[in-house]
Amino acid sequence: MPHKTLDDLFHDTLKDIYYAERQILKALRKMARGAQSQRLRDAFEKHHEETETHVQRLQQVFELIGKSARGKTCPAIDGIIEEGEEIMQSFKGAPALDAGLVATAQAVEHYEIARYGTLREWAVQLGMKEAAELLDQTLDEESATDDLLTEIAEQDTNPAATAAA
Amino acid sequence: MPHKTLDDLFHDTLKDIYYAERQILKALRKMARGAQSQRLRDAFEKHHEETETHVQRLQQVFELIGKSARGKTCPAIDGIIEEGEEIMQSFKGAPALDAGLVATAQAVEHYEIARYGTLREWAVQLGMKEAAELLDQTLDEESATDDLLTEIAEQDTNPAATAAA
Repeated sequence: MPHKTLDDLFHDTLKDIYYAERQILKALRKMARGAQSQRLRDAFEKHHEETETHVQRLQQVFELIGKSARGKTCPAIDGIIEEGEEIMQSFKGAPALDAGLVATAQAVEHYEIARYGTLREWAVQLGMKEAAELLDQTLDEESATDDLLTEIAEQDTNPAATAAA
Repeated sequence: MPHKTLDDLFHDTLKDIYYAERQILKALRKMARGAQSQRLRDAFEKHHEETETHVQRLQQVFELIGKSARGKTCPAIDGIIEEGEEIMQSFKGAPALDAGLVATAQAVEHYEIARYGTLREWAVQLGMKEAAELLDQTLDEESATDDLLTEIAEQDTNPAATAAA
């Protein structure tokens, strides 16, 4: 077995989040279609656009390390999305559906925040300044999305879930 | 099908994190055994103790809503732990192992931060003050653990991963 280094770990984790981002693209479309509130639907659609940029940035990082952009099944994101689909099914038509969709989306965002935070630190450690900057830009957008979802939950979806109950 | 409310969503998510916390207890033991650095091992052991308290707090919340403490399979945490086990296997004996363990632990923490943040907000919305406080205490400890792991990564495990490469 070859001597495994931080470069290998970086590459493995890059493949993991690349797979995850592409699953998230599909999930966001479904969640936008499922959302009851216009504000939440708009937030999912806007984040879908941002996610397309995140995929492109990852492709740039692959290029910077001289590897082809390839994903690797990420059971963590598959699990989070599976839980979201379960909520969409069992809360279909219920006043608490949107609150559940926000919860799913925030679990997705936090998975990404963890991965991008790690990847950025590793890029810094490995002296890859340009890659670190690309990863940092996405990290900022994931955090901003998480904050926006908290705001939507507090102002809209949580009150709506109990008002109509 | 009964009319699904925010109470149902709260209960479902409580079962999800209750299952997750118990899986995390087992994973932390394995990760503590696998860690190369003493500081990281100590951090995992300390967080194992905290996690026992988190499980007890969840049992109190179940009691507050008049339900028996029961978990429900959480594919998200199973996925995160599965990825961690893969790293432990493929980086066994490698200098980057600890950096990989920290990454896994931070993905776990962020999953919990998302879930506890959501549950606390829902408890507030549902007027459950005592439950909200219990969830908030755990949320604070998960965030503090995530911060500590970032510090360990920056000061110890990331430099060690490249120094020895």
